[in-house]
Amino acid sequence: MKCYDFTPAPNPRRVRIFAAEKGIALPTVPINLRDGEHLSEEYRSVNPYCTVPFLVLDDGTGISEVVAICRYLEELHPTPPLLGTSPKDKALIAMWEHRAEIEGLLAVADILRNSSPAFRGRALTGSLGYDQIPALAERGRARIAVFFAELDRRLAQSEFLAGKDFSMADITAMVTVDFAGWMKHLIGTEQSNLKRWHQAVSARPSAKA
Amino acid sequence: MKCYDFTPAPNPRRVRIFAAEKGIALPTVPINLRDGEHLSEEYRSVNPYCTVPFLVLDDGTGISEVVAICRYLEELHPTPPLLGTSPKDKALIAMWEHRAEIEGLLAVADILRNSSPAFRGRALTGSLGYDQIPALAERGRARIAVFFAELDRRLAQSEFLAGKDFSMADITAMVTVDFAGWMKHLIGTEQSNLKRWHQAVSARPSAKA
Repeated sequence: MKCYDFTPAPNPRRVRIFAAEKGIALPTVPINLRDGEHLSEEYRSVNPYCTVPFLVLDDGTGISEVVAICRYLEELHPTPPLLGTSPKDKALIAMWEHRAEIEGLLAVADILRNSSPAFRGRALTGSLGYDQIPALAERGRARIAVFFAELDRRLAQSEFLAGKDFSMADITAMVTVDFAGWMKHLIGTEQSNLKRWHQAVSARPSAKA
Repeated sequence: MKCYDFTPAPNPRRVRIFAAEKGIALPTVPINLRDGEHLSEEYRSVNPYCTVPFLVLDDGTGISEVVAICRYLEELHPTPPLLGTSPKDKALIAMWEHRAEIEGLLAVADILRNSSPAFRGRALTGSLGYDQIPALAERGRARIAVFFAELDRRLAQSEFLAGKDFSMADITAMVTVDFAGWMKHLIGTEQSNLKRWHQAVSARPSAKA
């Protein structure tokens, strides 16, 4: 098993943190997105979507999508559980993880990819070129403020995002908060719950993975 | 357990099909999105995100997000499995389900919500109003064509989207294909694999759920 990876990017970081929490030494193969290595013929023959992370199993099966890679790792290494144990916990983790991705991570990606000159003609991940839409960057800024406020409210009631235990939902949300920092969207001084949680999850050794 | 629902909308349909495949009689509560019932104070007090589907457990816990609701139903009623049994199958189903949602369903939603007068000021699901972005509707049209081509290629190699068994990935992809039909994006005459698969999944009794 090996995982194609690019250290600075948020999505591969979700997988590295997940593996680190489980103590899995996941062999990685670097693909330099800044140099366009993901768009090379060589990488296209590995992963036609041109995305990272991308997990290749020993039998050659390729798995794209962070949720799918993490599901595979969870099944192989159930302890510590990061996708829940009871039906209710599994559902709450899936819910918060999905919200963090759709309402958070994709909103920040919309800001970056629709405003940075480096992403001109590449406003979406994947093998195809899409033009930037400046209004989408603006909408991303509005949405990420809403998402941070939602996180702060939730974390006033709950130690971690999906309940009393650290989970995959916290990983996606932490990566989103850090990614938003690149876009200069910081935790508000009044968002004390979000701040408390962010300090706690960032202090875990896995956060450096 | 009860599930807030709106029959014509694609996301609640994913949950109804999932439940029907498992033979679960899921009690539903109708929320008429066309009449704006999801934005009422009453529904906000149930689900602050103002979305459907929304599952409420007997202990009062609310679960939003289709993937989370289906995870809960899978845990309670594992047979027939729709999220896989082996680690590899679970990963492949999660992968194709996520691709179908992000590359397919969200692209069609972008077309509808950014072009139909009925969604003016409501270009995203949820409790907040976002302006329409016409360029996003246009991008959605380009993306859905790419997604249909991807489905056709995949279904040339595989009976169902994630492998030899019908799964949640097929549900999301079928709902996406039907939703694209509303936007007049139809299966191409040359897309014979996609057509064969769509006829097969549409003939299952669950498709009418």
